[in-house]
Amino acid sequence: MNYYIMLKESVVFFMQLLDKINNSTDIKSLNLSELNQLSLEIREFLINNISKTGGHLASNLGVVELTIALLYNFDFTNDKIVFDVGHQSYVYKILTDRKQRFNTLRRYKGLSGFPKREESKFDFFDTGHSSNSISASLGMARARDLKGEDYNIISVIGDGALTGGMVYEALNDLGFNHSKMLIILNDNEMSISVNVGGLQKCLNKVRLTPSYNKLKEKVHYKLDRKNSNKLVNIVRKIKNSFKSLFFTPIFFEDLGIRYIGPIDGNNIKDLNKILKKIKNLNEPIVLHVVTTKGLGYLPALQNPNQFHAVSKFDIKTGKISKPSGLTYSEAFGSSLVSLAKNNKKIVAITASMVTGTGLGEFSEIYPNRLFDVGITEEHAVTLAGGMATNGLKPIFVCYSTFLQRGFDQLLMDVCLQNLPVVFAIDRAGLVGNDGKTHQGIFDLSYLNMMPNMEILTPKCVEEMSVFLEYAFSKNNPISIRYPKGRNTYKLVPIKKIKNGKWEMISDGDKVIILATGKMVELACLAKQKLPKKYNPIIINALFIKPLDKEYLKKIVKQNYNVLTLEDNNIIGGFGQQVLYELNNLGFRQKIKILGYQDKFIDHGTIDELLVQEHMDINSIILEIKNLYK
Amino acid sequence: MNYYIMLKESVVFFMQLLDKINNSTDIKSLNLSELNQLSLEIREFLINNISKTGGHLASNLGVVELTIALLYNFDFTNDKIVFDVGHQSYVYKILTDRKQRFNTLRRYKGLSGFPKREESKFDFFDTGHSSNSISASLGMARARDLKGEDYNIISVIGDGALTGGMVYEALNDLGFNHSKMLIILNDNEMSISVNVGGLQKCLNKVRLTPSYNKLKEKVHYKLDRKNSNKLVNIVRKIKNSFKSLFFTPIFFEDLGIRYIGPIDGNNIKDLNKILKKIKNLNEPIVLHVVTTKGLGYLPALQNPNQFHAVSKFDIKTGKISKPSGLTYSEAFGSSLVSLAKNNKKIVAITASMVTGTGLGEFSEIYPNRLFDVGITEEHAVTLAGGMATNGLKPIFVCYSTFLQRGFDQLLMDVCLQNLPVVFAIDRAGLVGNDGKTHQGIFDLSYLNMMPNMEILTPKCVEEMSVFLEYAFSKNNPISIRYPKGRNTYKLVPIKKIKNGKWEMISDGDKVIILATGKMVELACLAKQKLPKKYNPIIINALFIKPLDKEYLKKIVKQNYNVLTLEDNNIIGGFGQQVLYELNNLGFRQKIKILGYQDKFIDHGTIDELLVQEHMDINSIILEIKNLYK
Repeated sequence: MNYYIMLKESVVFFMQLLDKINNSTDIKSLNLSELNQLSLEIREFLINNISKTGGHLASNLGVVELTIALLYNFDFTNDKIVFDVGHQSYVYKILTDRKQRFNTLRRYKGLSGFPKREESKFDFFDTGHSSNSISASLGMARARDLKGEDYNIISVIGDGALTGGMVYEALNDLGFNHSKMLIILNDNEMSISVNVGGLQKCLNKVRLTPSYNKLKEKVHYKLDRKNSNKLVNIVRKIKNSFKSLFFTPIFFEDLGIRYIGPIDGNNIKDLNKILKKIKNLNEPIVLHVVTTKGLGYLPALQNPNQFHAVSKFDIKTGKISKPSGLTYSEAFGSSLVSLAKNNKKIVAITASMVTGTGLGEFSEIYPNRLFDVGITEEHAVTLAGGMATNGLKPIFVCYSTFLQRGFDQLLMDVCLQNLPVVFAIDRAGLVGNDGKTHQGIFDLSYLNMMPNMEILTPKCVEEMSVFLEYAFSKNNPISIRYPKGRNTYKLVPIKKIKNGKWEMISDGDKVIILATGKMVELACLAKQKLPKKYNPIIINALFIKPLDKEYLKKIVKQNYNVLTLEDNNIIGGFGQQVLYELNNLGFRQKIKILGYQDKFIDHGTIDELLVQEHMDINSIILEIKNLYK
Repeated sequence: MNYYIMLKESVVFFMQLLDKINNSTDIKSLNLSELNQLSLEIREFLINNISKTGGHLASNLGVVELTIALLYNFDFTNDKIVFDVGHQSYVYKILTDRKQRFNTLRRYKGLSGFPKREESKFDFFDTGHSSNSISASLGMARARDLKGEDYNIISVIGDGALTGGMVYEALNDLGFNHSKMLIILNDNEMSISVNVGGLQKCLNKVRLTPSYNKLKEKVHYKLDRKNSNKLVNIVRKIKNSFKSLFFTPIFFEDLGIRYIGPIDGNNIKDLNKILKKIKNLNEPIVLHVVTTKGLGYLPALQNPNQFHAVSKFDIKTGKISKPSGLTYSEAFGSSLVSLAKNNKKIVAITASMVTGTGLGEFSEIYPNRLFDVGITEEHAVTLAGGMATNGLKPIFVCYSTFLQRGFDQLLMDVCLQNLPVVFAIDRAGLVGNDGKTHQGIFDLSYLNMMPNMEILTPKCVEEMSVFLEYAFSKNNPISIRYPKGRNTYKLVPIKKIKNGKWEMISDGDKVIILATGKMVELACLAKQKLPKKYNPIIINALFIKPLDKEYLKKIVKQNYNVLTLEDNNIIGGFGQQVLYELNNLGFRQKIKILGYQDKFIDHGTIDELLVQEHMDINSIILEIKNLYK
């Protein structure tokens, strides 16, 4: 049975409803059967569009009914809503005047894949990182109350995001303050059926309710399906331990927050009934809704992980398009597996990113040496610090943008004690379509300023193994940063890293290019395109911290001009450190620093963004020519 | 009745016990009455020493018996212990071979006021910031288990530190992993007697235990005493709402962590009995002990807040020595009160630092506009962001070093949306005796790299009001950073801040000093001491971001040499930004950047540390002379 085909036929029959619906005013005039029909049409719309643009499919398919019901029952010209993380806000975007532009999703100058205040008056807080929505909503609620205003403020938060400590900080505060606020706990992993330790007792209360029993069948279906996948189960087991806490109503009630649920979040009738009742209650409320990720499209239903953040795919087959060649994440994963074989001290930590960071194989081979600690970058970093004090070689694998959450812990719990923790920083530099909350363009700045931290970056996928090997050989905090994606150009990988030494890629005269990471590739391509009379030296500055001081001294002697290239914001980055050292050494030639300007960078393809930021090959060529003047 | 006098007399009688006791081996040979005697002698020792060195008195007086009992029952040549925050580790230091050096506490090259691995093999993790001890201990426990070793790992954490989200992240992880670990919840605020919302029911269970009833009298005594102080009560009320959650055993039991308590943490006999029992249990355990802050010294018992972190004091009268003149914190507090009078949109947020940040008066006058959110810098920053989106003018008042915890939220939840949140950053620059976990020498670096962030710093206490007024007039994120302490030199305060314009303090020729904040004072003092032939221009760079570009252009035209001065690490700081801009403008003269080198800076007086870091007046004079060569 092809669920999608089934869906499609029923949709074709009615097709025109969505054409007339643009916002919540239009929705309010629909009856229940029309609302249900609308949900079918939106699914069709989502699948069609995302198959072309890529994006977060599974989670948005899960919240179609929930979003419709929220728009039906609330009025967001007055009420406010904050989507935690925000990747599940597509349906909301479609139904708040952005349907016409939805085909531009995640594209350059198009709609963002996340809520964005600049984009619409219906977006109230820009999200992208996890677990902050309750804090933001509570801020709005306090402002409302101090101003003597009256409207609803809603936070929609998934079960994964509940693992972050910020949520708990905010719930504590909310429970005391007791502002009117609605928290929709969107539970799409069905973990309420898993019993962990002493929770059994508390859960029994939930299990006796009729709403729970109604949901039970779905749960069993999903569990059976998932049992076939070993990896998924390991991950789920870890995740569930966290979430179970939250599914105890007592947890919320203890905090002074009324808990209601669980109810079926894919049933508009049920949702309408409950939302109508609670919207006028003058207190903080948690409404626990259970939704099914990927509902309405069988491939996404069967592989919600694969269809979480998906690139273009073929609707009929569910086949996801994937360029050839190893990604940095994949190369990282297999390198780590090899190294861990001969070094039993190596353990890996991830903050809910086993698949995304390439740790899948490692988690299968070394399940006892993998720690998925939830979306808790703070805890993860200090945990690694504690492990390092007691003789392990921990590696924390994290996206550049999310590691920002562990800033204080990096500085105070790892660098301060000079502990040998390895940080594998994935998605460093521009990431493209996920946009400004996800660009990894700050890590060089926030790591450079940390005493004792060593920072390296490979110039190509093939170097991942030798970089990791070097990292584990060191006795200090060390970061290996690498970009999203693959190589596009063939470079000769380094065989062995010499402590603190940069690599000469191409000799020349008069101008020296100091390039880091993937910018080495761009420097080479620029040199290829340049007329022969320009012959810049290209240096691979694989050591970003410490800099290769010997080479810098050589530069001062040579009296050549310098161009620095980095996939990071300029302030505090690589180029500024080069400039500072060269200035101290008495350098008096010209130096030009290329990197990103002091601003956030919106979404688009990486190539489009490089052009926009004057960091593409042609811009580099221009700068080289300038330095030859 | 003078409690201290009473204590003293009984101590004098025995006096010699502590002389013979240096570490846990010595302690294990004592009987109960000797252990009790030892606790009296240690109190005497603490009071005598801290009255001369300053330090954390009240909290250490509270944990004397607890620390003795831990050393009696455990063996820290094998077992490990992590003190959360770490200011309560003095007794532990005294009893782990550091008694002889205790008179050097917090002094230059002396003992640290916090645990420090470099200082002793008995210190297992350097702490200073709150709420990270369970993460660190869990890391050690996992290493122990993977290595197949067997010993105890203990985390000692106060009730205040439990408000931080990291604790919750770590407890979640621990509850699932179920490693053997002992968490001592050191509850010294007696908040278990306060009923908040739905917690009543859960607390009843605790209230029926004999141990609770035994503690009750103490509680009532303290509550009565505290009732006389309005401010203290407001603060307590806020704090208690958080802590109450934790005093529900169900909270821990739900997580799979066994809860035991509450027991009297000032009773060695009780402690010995319970510690003996639980040390061999092979699971995570929370032991809830209730201790009395300041016990053994009446002034500290009566004013635990004042004697939390205290400077030198007179033992007999309890009078704390205080230099004359307004501190920056005090000037900030009174300025904020004035501004809030005419601008109802102003609200203040603090992370458990009402007194320390000078918000006492504000909290009394505007209790509804003060939000003490617990030790939750992450939540605090995003809460401010949410408030700003809904029309308030929030100010988050925070020490520089603790604001590091809100790094990602500053960047993603405030700067990304360019929200008008004011950050009042106290204790920026060197703080002196609290040492390396508390120096505020990174904020310029981590704020400079944030797009949309404006950064200013007053040069003297008297400017606080005009800086705050300017900050609230702006429509973007803005940080006002200011140092610990007072002015020592009289400068003419700025009357009105001109957008983006630096201030000329002293005209001259050939060399331009660009000084920020309190470095302006040092620059002036340096110029005074210089022979007349050196006549540097002194510029007060009150705008750190954005820089005064017009003035920088002028510098390039003048062709003078430049010296930059900042109370911050060099990497990513003020000087590097000046260098970068001047380089872009084609500056070809000499520029010297003075700030702190790329390392952590230990404790000592600020003056001692300035000399050590070559940032004192004489060092500045030397640099000026160099630039005249």
